[in-house]
Amino acid sequence: MAVSGLVMASVPATPVYILTIRCRDAVGIVAAVATTLAAADAFITESSHFGDPDTGLFFMRTVFHAHASARALSRSEYRDLLEPVRRRFGMQLELHDSAERMRVVLAVSRHSHCLNHLLHRWHSDELPIDVAAVFSNHDDLRRTVEWYGVPFHYVPATTPAAKPAQEQALRDLIVASEAGLLVLARYMQVLSPALCADLDGACINIHHSFLPSFKGAKPYHQAHDRGVKLVGATAHFVTPDLDEGPIIEQDIVRVDHAHDAEAFVRLGKDVENVVLARAVQWHAERRVFRNGQRTVVFRH
Amino acid sequence: MAVSGLVMASVPATPVYILTIRCRDAVGIVAAVATTLAAADAFITESSHFGDPDTGLFFMRTVFHAHASARALSRSEYRDLLEPVRRRFGMQLELHDSAERMRVVLAVSRHSHCLNHLLHRWHSDELPIDVAAVFSNHDDLRRTVEWYGVPFHYVPATTPAAKPAQEQALRDLIVASEAGLLVLARYMQVLSPALCADLDGACINIHHSFLPSFKGAKPYHQAHDRGVKLVGATAHFVTPDLDEGPIIEQDIVRVDHAHDAEAFVRLGKDVENVVLARAVQWHAERRVFRNGQRTVVFRH
Amino acid sequence: MAVSGLVMASVPATPVYILTIRCRDAVGIVAAVATTLAAADAFITESSHFGDPDTGLFFMRTVFHAHASARALSRSEYRDLLEPVRRRFGMQLELHDSAERMRVVLAVSRHSHCLNHLLHRWHSDELPIDVAAVFSNHDDLRRTVEWYGVPFHYVPATTPAAKPAQEQALRDLIVASEAGLLVLARYMQVLSPALCADLDGACINIHHSFLPSFKGAKPYHQAHDRGVKLVGATAHFVTPDLDEGPIIEQDIVRVDHAHDAEAFVRLGKDVENVVLARAVQWHAERRVFRNGQRTVVFRH
Amino acid sequence: MAVSGLVMASVPATPVYILTIRCRDAVGIVAAVATTLAAADAFITESSHFGDPDTGLFFMRTVFHAHASARALSRSEYRDLLEPVRRRFGMQLELHDSAERMRVVLAVSRHSHCLNHLLHRWHSDELPIDVAAVFSNHDDLRRTVEWYGVPFHYVPATTPAAKPAQEQALRDLIVASEAGLLVLARYMQVLSPALCADLDGACINIHHSFLPSFKGAKPYHQAHDRGVKLVGATAHFVTPDLDEGPIIEQDIVRVDHAHDAEAFVRLGKDVENVVLARAVQWHAERRVFRNGQRTVVFRH
Repeated sequence: MAVSGLVMASVPATPVYILTIRCRDAVGIVAAVATTLAAADAFITESSHFGDPDTGLFFMRTVFHAHASARALSRSEYRDLLEPVRRRFGMQLELHDSAERMRVVLAVSRHSHCLNHLLHRWHSDELPIDVAAVFSNHDDLRRTVEWYGVPFHYVPATTPAAKPAQEQALRDLIVASEAGLLVLARYMQVLSPALCADLDGACINIHHSFLPSFKGAKPYHQAHDRGVKLVGATAHFVTPDLDEGPIIEQDIVRVDHAHDAEAFVRLGKDVENVVLARAVQWHAERRVFRNGQRTVVFRH
Repeated sequence: MAVSGLVMASVPATPVYILTIRCRDAVGIVAAVATTLAAADAFITESSHFGDPDTGLFFMRTVFHAHASARALSRSEYRDLLEPVRRRFGMQLELHDSAERMRVVLAVSRHSHCLNHLLHRWHSDELPIDVAAVFSNHDDLRRTVEWYGVPFHYVPATTPAAKPAQEQALRDLIVASEAGLLVLARYMQVLSPALCADLDGACINIHHSFLPSFKGAKPYHQAHDRGVKLVGATAHFVTPDLDEGPIIEQDIVRVDHAHDAEAFVRLGKDVENVVLARAVQWHAERRVFRNGQRTVVFRH
Repeated sequence: MAVSGLVMASVPATPVYILTIRCRDAVGIVAAVATTLAAADAFITESSHFGDPDTGLFFMRTVFHAHASARALSRSEYRDLLEPVRRRFGMQLELHDSAERMRVVLAVSRHSHCLNHLLHRWHSDELPIDVAAVFSNHDDLRRTVEWYGVPFHYVPATTPAAKPAQEQALRDLIVASEAGLLVLARYMQVLSPALCADLDGACINIHHSFLPSFKGAKPYHQAHDRGVKLVGATAHFVTPDLDEGPIIEQDIVRVDHAHDAEAFVRLGKDVENVVLARAVQWHAERRVFRNGQRTVVFRH
Repeated sequence: MAVSGLVMASVPATPVYILTIRCRDAVGIVAAVATTLAAADAFITESSHFGDPDTGLFFMRTVFHAHASARALSRSEYRDLLEPVRRRFGMQLELHDSAERMRVVLAVSRHSHCLNHLLHRWHSDELPIDVAAVFSNHDDLRRTVEWYGVPFHYVPATTPAAKPAQEQALRDLIVASEAGLLVLARYMQVLSPALCADLDGACINIHHSFLPSFKGAKPYHQAHDRGVKLVGATAHFVTPDLDEGPIIEQDIVRVDHAHDAEAFVRLGKDVENVVLARAVQWHAERRVFRNGQRTVVFRH
């Protein structure tokens, strides 16, 4: 049922579509969508929806393909069929062919673990993305990236004055790559508010603490000073408020008094890897919705 | 959104219904159900469905109530509206008023932790069940049970010859209590195949290991002998094959070389408590479906 | 090996002692202690030590009893033998007979889950403490407490003016009970700085969040607003800085977008139970040491 | 305090030694060892010991270096000082210079995740081993291995008759590499009983299930058929009894009804990575002892 790379392999030639919807909650939404799809002989293989009583918003994700006995319609044909429903409920509606992978730019500084993990999983056909390019303010990880056949863009900025040009280079790369997602895989530069705003919902960061604890720099050292018994990592959408963006995923690992701050760093890496990879996978599979300062995630 | 006791308190007078469906998967099921509910102005607050490609079966659970602007129908009126859909797809369809709690008989021997946990959560209005009675082959826990105002039935069976009468007493109690569920909360007697068959899908046991490891007696001691690094507990439906029933929930706790078998017993109790309470809650909320030797659980 | 209630049962008549040491780290501490014990034919069944390179402090906990072939000394005899070592290294040294249980006062308001869990574990001989009394600012839980044969002290304080007298009553109860530990098992009153200071290292609180996130009131609601994906609980020593005391234990449970704040409350209770019971057990077994704003915990 | 690669960087020129001891439990062992070390002005930075009441065996691991004010002795000098203690208690005693890394041969078939994870952590100086060579029955992962500058030995065996020669090649490689550990990082060939016996305590395998559940082939598919709610991975010493060796580490990840067997495979990989890396690290740091069919692991 998963629309992951692994499973894709065994899916027949019939295209599989992912429909996502966001609108105000109301009676009849599911009925209208399901009836439209059923009338087109579409077979639903996975569907989740959620109405948030706090915000009054409704979120839905449905995966379907043409039934074996039916004619497979094109994306635009399905889109046209759904248009009356979209209008009726004022929906933000997207329809994706699951075979068209989200194009992604990864940004990294010197810590290689998240980059290595994402590239390996992508290379093993386990992350349904296309890695278009890697951007870095250091040249350290060029060999790793190029081994995977991915272009490596090294743009340092050793003075504050050089920052705007560096960020412009990142913007240009995202545009030139036709990327729909920027992943900050331990990228130790703060993006400008303008770029954060422009990438709203299209930029995921991994913060190496259990947010909202230990925002800012050196979170493992802050955690050690506070004497916590678990350390965590948080993948979140980037917003202009540093480390305040909507949380997509979090996890933790146990520590004790015998672990110094360096051990926290080491143990935390496994958690960062897993948390960031999950967030990227779910986002690429269109499972993640912003819901104000929170997210709706139809996990898998 | 949860249909738990706690949340019930704030739900308006309008009845909330839980619809469960099980049938062969096909195009149009969700459309037919959702359209029927929408036509009756029913507002869906929670809905999950799953089509199993292995078995070709489809499972659905939908929670709804009459929209504020609509006339609230009775259960039988909703039932009648759904009848054509039920027939069309050959559904096993159930419609429950969430305010009508599942009546439950608990069986226990001498270990009190699961019993104490279930009774406390029920008493705190956190488990949406009615505890009708407690059955035991020992008299030890009478005071605990009676404190909660629950009838305690002590029926020992010190010889094999006494077993059939004991089991008949348990059967009679279930019938007299009009119970829909028997929970074996560390009941150290094996039910006869006949009773297991009669209680198919209506009897939940807690086994104190991570099944399928360590079936049978003294699982913590088996686990200690094997030198595992995690011990677990498993809540499962009871079937005539001992410890082989469909699994509803499992969880684990970490152990190490310094824990002896008695420490495994002690540490495992917290896991048993939580795992069994989750299974009972989910079952009472109609979230659990048998799917051959496995289960579908729409967790919350 | 555990010095828990369960295991106590099988320990021979020979007294088992728990030695705890805290001093500046130096060469020869372990040698001096171990040599002294060996010279007295004491058999060590469990021993842990830790030197903190940050603070330069050394912590040690050793469990021993007289070897089968040796004469069992009294506590004061062992204490005398250790005195030269204590002086040489300037140790804070304590020697406890493990059969002498720590006397504990529990304080609670209206949430019964932690109280119920602690009382049940104590009653089942799984917590090596003596519950001397329960103190509450509400009368709700009297029946529960009295079922266990424990005195229940109800001292309300409905106006700020009544608070000092209420706190004095709590102080008096601790003294009269000869209690070595006060456990705030969801006690919703803030202790005065003076009482916090007087109970330094002898008062454990359960906070229903993953500290340092969500200090103060309604942490589950804060957590829900922030959209976290895990909620936690923290057991910590109480200090005059609210929710800033040294952390003894933490744990978490997963939540998602479909859980409202009330569901966070419900799910968090299981974590609070387990975290607080572990902290109390470890403290009672003399496994917990303050180390500045952190703790050293020789877990079991 | 950790003797991991990361921390090594900040350790002074003074060598750090790891002492491991295994013998029958008795009064005075810790005293004798600690006194000997203290007499040589050795500063203990980490020490753990455990006496198993079941087997009567005693295990100890102590990390020390010469005190700043003392003359640093050589390994053989410390060894000579400890010799009388070793004889007195009949110890298996090892003394390792922590700077001398354990040499390791990795064996792999076609699944690259564990290999990639181990190589990356080693390359990042986070695993205190030397990877001497990689052995494989497939040529697929040559490019990965050679990127790291590690010799890749491809020895296929497409017929049963070719197996003995293949295994002899592996034996020769271990000898030629002067390796102290063989890690089966998803190596899908069964070693002969003779090789298992020869590598007793020096060969670690990752099995992709929560042993003892689901031994043998395709454990994730077995787990899916059984309908478990958690899947696990187990790192264990290899013995002639397949999947029955002493367990070093285990961990799990949650699955549900919507995950097919392929999803189990995908989700399990993260657990396999982490579990195997922990086992290799702990073994390399001399934290793991065989204790009959179980292990003693002084975790960090």
